[in-house]
Amino acid sequence: MHFTKMHGLGNDYLYYYGELKNPSSISKRLSDRHFGIGSDGIITISPSTAADFKMRIFNADGSEAMMCGNGIRCVGKYVFDKGYIDQKKLTIETLSGNRELTLGTIGNRVNEVTVNMGKCIVNKPVLLDTSYGKVMVTPVSVGNPHAVAFVESITDAPVDTMGKELEHHPYFKDGVNAEFVQVIDRNTIKMRVWERGSGITMACGTGACASAAAAVRADLCDKEEEIAVCLDGGQLKIKVLSDGTVMMTGPAETICECEVEEQ
Amino acid sequence: MHFTKMHGLGNDYLYYYGELKNPSSISKRLSDRHFGIGSDGIITISPSTAADFKMRIFNADGSEAMMCGNGIRCVGKYVFDKGYIDQKKLTIETLSGNRELTLGTIGNRVNEVTVNMGKCIVNKPVLLDTSYGKVMVTPVSVGNPHAVAFVESITDAPVDTMGKELEHHPYFKDGVNAEFVQVIDRNTIKMRVWERGSGITMACGTGACASAAAAVRADLCDKEEEIAVCLDGGQLKIKVLSDGTVMMTGPAETICECEVEEQ
Repeated sequence: MHFTKMHGLGNDYLYYYGELKNPSSISKRLSDRHFGIGSDGIITISPSTAADFKMRIFNADGSEAMMCGNGIRCVGKYVFDKGYIDQKKLTIETLSGNRELTLGTIGNRVNEVTVNMGKCIVNKPVLLDTSYGKVMVTPVSVGNPHAVAFVESITDAPVDTMGKELEHHPYFKDGVNAEFVQVIDRNTIKMRVWERGSGITMACGTGACASAAAAVRADLCDKEEEIAVCLDGGQLKIKVLSDGTVMMTGPAETICECEVEEQ
Repeated sequence: MHFTKMHGLGNDYLYYYGELKNPSSISKRLSDRHFGIGSDGIITISPSTAADFKMRIFNADGSEAMMCGNGIRCVGKYVFDKGYIDQKKLTIETLSGNRELTLGTIGNRVNEVTVNMGKCIVNKPVLLDTSYGKVMVTPVSVGNPHAVAFVESITDAPVDTMGKELEHHPYFKDGVNAEFVQVIDRNTIKMRVWERGSGITMACGTGACASAAAAVRADLCDKEEEIAVCLDGGQLKIKVLSDGTVMMTGPAETICECEVEEQ
């Protein structure tokens, strides 16, 4: 079986062209970082009747995920670099619906990808009771739920403890991803994230979109302008359009080609 | 560049045949578990004038290690499975001296390897003052220094806290690897390990040798008999010979073949 290990901001998956018979068990086995190749999971790419390609995401624990912003950029690089497609605009079918990609290339290789992430729904900020006292957060939906808190210093923000507390706060029935955002200027924000079910991660694509959208709503940044979102794993460029659509641009990198024996 | 990812009890390295120009920087880059292939380091295998082959070990931080019991078994599997040698007894040059290997095969593939680990030096047990009160440990040298503590229950042993304390105990000038050992019967022991500089790991080959040698000295196990050492990452079989030589037998497994572009 042939896999390509790729990453977007350190979010690493094993990419496979075709359909796997037992994707969950293969993902559990190969994602193990000591006994397997090591990854956050497996992403399969196959032909689609609803779009140019279909992607499915299997986490390292075998469960299936709906959508992954860092992963879908690598799917764009995969199909172009390997010659499955030669156009630079394409659509990908995901469990969250179709997504439009625009590929940026250097030579004949993709180096960055812009993804239309659909419309963000930014709600009115709310004051929540926490063990840190009253904390103001902006609830945002990017398909999945987020709570964005603006902080004075990202290095001092208690991402682990308050992130965990917000995830399980009774205000959010299904839990929430918690973003801590420091605004540097009207085109630059720094963000750290506590992901629902995962804890602190190096980069969360939907979290970057939610943070930029919340910053625009608070008039800390501008719509239709590029906002650089600096994450622990690297940088994303987000644009919030007038109709609420969010465009995310970021890197996609190939690490290695892997050949594994079937078991 | 072609690498083979292999593991011995979950201790995983990228194996390369030949000499690398910048092994330290390549190991740092490729060992990263999110931005690289992911491994505990790189092991290079090349011809030797002093033995059948020479192995060099580069840790994930780029530093060079002297010897690795789990790694040398995989070297034996690598050279046999890939046809660099067709005999089942061979010698490997390491920075700790030459080691003799005996290969066990199923079909024409190696499944387990016995390594002559040289002579263990087992010292008289000492009583050390710790924050847990007086703790009896047996100092053992297997090239590197170990302190073996016999415990009633391996599940209750404070491997993390007491392991750290023993590593830095003033009695051991250069630090020490701390093994916690529960004797099940005269042919079976359970061991958990705190490795000097690494903390808790799933399996430590020299630690298993030190533990078996200490158990033989304490007359809890027998010399010239096979002792099963059960570790978090799997099982090793250790035999302590009458002259103090320790033979270690354990598995070696191939995970995948990896092709990486030079940078």
